[in-house]
Amino acid sequence: MAKLTKREDNYSQWYNELVVKADLAENSEVRGCMVIKPYGYSIWEKMQAALDKMFKDTGHSNAYFPLFVPKSLFEAEEKNAEGFAKECAVVTHYRLKNDPNNKGKLIVDENAKLEEELIVRPTSEAIIWKTYKNWIQSYRDLPILVNQWANVVRWEMRTRLFLRTAEFLWQEGHTAHATKDEAITETEQMIGVYAKFAEEFMAVPVIQGLKTESERFAGAEETYCIEALMQDGKALQAGTSHFLGQNFAKAFDVKYTTKEGKQEFVWATSWGVSTRLIGALVMAHSDDLGLVLPPKLAPIHVVIVPIYKGLEQLDSISNVALDLKAKLQDLGLSVKYDDRDTHKPGFKFADYELKGVPVRVAIGPKDLENGTIEIARRDTLEKSVIALEGSASIIAELMNEIQINIYNRASEFQKSNTVSVDSYDEFKELIKGKGGFVSAHWDGTSETEDRIKLETKATIRCIPLNNELEPGKCIRTGKPSIQRVIFAKAY
Amino acid sequence: MAKLTKREDNYSQWYNELVVKADLAENSEVRGCMVIKPYGYSIWEKMQAALDKMFKDTGHSNAYFPLFVPKSLFEAEEKNAEGFAKECAVVTHYRLKNDPNNKGKLIVDENAKLEEELIVRPTSEAIIWKTYKNWIQSYRDLPILVNQWANVVRWEMRTRLFLRTAEFLWQEGHTAHATKDEAITETEQMIGVYAKFAEEFMAVPVIQGLKTESERFAGAEETYCIEALMQDGKALQAGTSHFLGQNFAKAFDVKYTTKEGKQEFVWATSWGVSTRLIGALVMAHSDDLGLVLPPKLAPIHVVIVPIYKGLEQLDSISNVALDLKAKLQDLGLSVKYDDRDTHKPGFKFADYELKGVPVRVAIGPKDLENGTIEIARRDTLEKSVIALEGSASIIAELMNEIQINIYNRASEFQKSNTVSVDSYDEFKELIKGKGGFVSAHWDGTSETEDRIKLETKATIRCIPLNNELEPGKCIRTGKPSIQRVIFAKAY
Repeated sequence: MAKLTKREDNYSQWYNELVVKADLAENSEVRGCMVIKPYGYSIWEKMQAALDKMFKDTGHSNAYFPLFVPKSLFEAEEKNAEGFAKECAVVTHYRLKNDPNNKGKLIVDENAKLEEELIVRPTSEAIIWKTYKNWIQSYRDLPILVNQWANVVRWEMRTRLFLRTAEFLWQEGHTAHATKDEAITETEQMIGVYAKFAEEFMAVPVIQGLKTESERFAGAEETYCIEALMQDGKALQAGTSHFLGQNFAKAFDVKYTTKEGKQEFVWATSWGVSTRLIGALVMAHSDDLGLVLPPKLAPIHVVIVPIYKGLEQLDSISNVALDLKAKLQDLGLSVKYDDRDTHKPGFKFADYELKGVPVRVAIGPKDLENGTIEIARRDTLEKSVIALEGSASIIAELMNEIQINIYNRASEFQKSNTVSVDSYDEFKELIKGKGGFVSAHWDGTSETEDRIKLETKATIRCIPLNNELEPGKCIRTGKPSIQRVIFAKAY
Repeated sequence: MAKLTKREDNYSQWYNELVVKADLAENSEVRGCMVIKPYGYSIWEKMQAALDKMFKDTGHSNAYFPLFVPKSLFEAEEKNAEGFAKECAVVTHYRLKNDPNNKGKLIVDENAKLEEELIVRPTSEAIIWKTYKNWIQSYRDLPILVNQWANVVRWEMRTRLFLRTAEFLWQEGHTAHATKDEAITETEQMIGVYAKFAEEFMAVPVIQGLKTESERFAGAEETYCIEALMQDGKALQAGTSHFLGQNFAKAFDVKYTTKEGKQEFVWATSWGVSTRLIGALVMAHSDDLGLVLPPKLAPIHVVIVPIYKGLEQLDSISNVALDLKAKLQDLGLSVKYDDRDTHKPGFKFADYELKGVPVRVAIGPKDLENGTIEIARRDTLEKSVIALEGSASIIAELMNEIQINIYNRASEFQKSNTVSVDSYDEFKELIKGKGGFVSAHWDGTSETEDRIKLETKATIRCIPLNNELEPGKCIRTGKPSIQRVIFAKAY
């Protein structure tokens, strides 16, 4: 197995190689679309399970809406349509036929042209609000708190596994409310859910904030986001929650009768996270040996590798190993015993390091004699020999320690790479150099924001929630500013 | 709430109304595509959870493959391509632009035409076997045991909610094996898993069998199926498992090196069930009052309805009800306490009958005095008054009883509607009349099969597994037959 490129040599190549070598995903035959391999998908399943529980605990139910959006619905909310028009896969025909000039080949049947083109959903506000119109008559029908797990398609020109793919998997929550306040409370609640998930499960610290107007979701009044910092100093937007105002209600004429008998437009939110989170997970924690996975999302918590010569030794070790495996499983851990005789222990060690298994246990003949096992932590690479007796609960406890340690490491990295600057020279140097979150004054105009982006490639990631107001001068124009905002180069 | 059409008046209309009124699903703005509403989707989630566990217990992992199949891959396995060509949604463009003649409207950008059209997957053998080619070199890479939960599109002209929709949700297992025997064993194992799921979770008895050549999956060597009988005497194919031979391996040149160093083509299976199962569930058990759901798939097991006058009474009843609710939840049941003051008890009773909640508990002031509750079973509509003390465990036990009773009822229905006939007149009369599974001799030719279908609309549902061989004469042609097969009209 060829070694991974080192992060410091080429971070981007390190990431691309790692995703493939660790069996997370690979490019497919379809331009820009990925295959999520079983190991990568099992991380997604763990993410889904945790998020789904959080959504249900906050009162949401799942449903499913069509993959296709008729063009006339798609264009109803103009800003939303404009935002996605340039990256839409369009279905125009519904049948193939035999190619008369080429036996065994098929061509599109021109007689099966759709009267109205269908857009493969890049997001589902349009089809969902067209549906909600029939579900909502009175205030008694509100709120509607629905989520959907689905695939969406955005025709991206430059794609990267997990980070930006033409098709991706996500969840999209779409809620309808009687009042503006209630909708804003929901929007804020859900960005809070995402932040909690990122920090507690992914072990990735995030900044919660508001997007500037130019970075808002197309069709939103306000976009809340969580921003994470990757090891190369670039930011990654990990989740968004949108307050949609009455824009979709107006586009689809969705009104309700209030308690007082008046007709009012309904207020909306939408919020989503995607398989992009797997990219964030990889880039936040992993090292030159491979993945480092937080135990709460690791498909395998513990791998046990026997070190043996001959079948007799293997048998004795297997007895101990399988007993330990059972004890660990009783404690709720997912355990693999790798007794394959086709691979050497050294190969297996490297492979499970690559795959980010949090704890490796090795058991050899000396361990049998001494009643010990060797445990190795993936996060610190520390090895220690401990007594077999009582080891299961020590390993289970280690999972919590590793989860916390990974978070603390990422948190310290984030802290030491979040810097306040007050001059544009300093700003440019930092952005060009080690990157990170750069906290700086901005005059509040899109014009300045665009200019800074053009000159430095840095964008405003967010205006942090509950931001401290602090008068100052815009780093680019010197005009008055009321607060610092977070800049960074971003994925 | 308008009453449901009765089954005996119009079974088909009864079904259509019930699916909508019980909040399972509705038609969408997209031709042939449905919206699965939260209540319907929660049944699907329960089905998914049970099936997913069964798949994992038999060694399978989940993965995800692209939604789109490039036309050149799609047509590689010719029989498969031919089978699906007439119902393919085709993506031809990847961008929209502003309509210069119609402000605010969008049109397809003709400059963004794809070089090669993309088919929205009707099934994923093609894209998956193109991928497996890169995963398989040696016998060590086999077997591959992968499943995918996904949406697929088949452009059906006549659609019905759940039973036949242009887009539907399903799972598709795709496995690769070194030997023919192993692949056949897998195919049979998975039809067995489906049969077990249908019987143990859905409470629907099924016949396992083989499809005739003309009813086989396009590209399969052998299709195994489970067939269920609906209350109107029509059969419903509820799941299929295909032995694909080496057809896809040959189409995509997927070979492996054997232990002996030889190159061999790989053997394949695929197997799937879909949201169609929800249609089967509805049609197998429900009655003129609404859904009858087996407890193992019911989103809500118990609903508690207070019968009260005035808030003081409600308070006292709520104390008892919430205590019972907590006890039932501790026993693993999903419980709803419906204390809405906007609806009368009679309305609630009818609504939960419509929705098929297995047990309804009513608590009124007399119950408080007597220390009793009233329980009503949805399956038998029996009511009884029992002591509050100890009622939680009685209700929990009732769930098992109801599950078994629903299965037994469906099983008796199936038995009394499975009839052996030996003359074509009798056959025709039966098929035209009460329907059911008709066991009859057939000469084994597609020609006769087609003729019978044309003359009676009955098709051969399957040749039962482990069928008893019994010499006889074909009911249609009088030619020799070696066994009876199962005929029925089908969904």
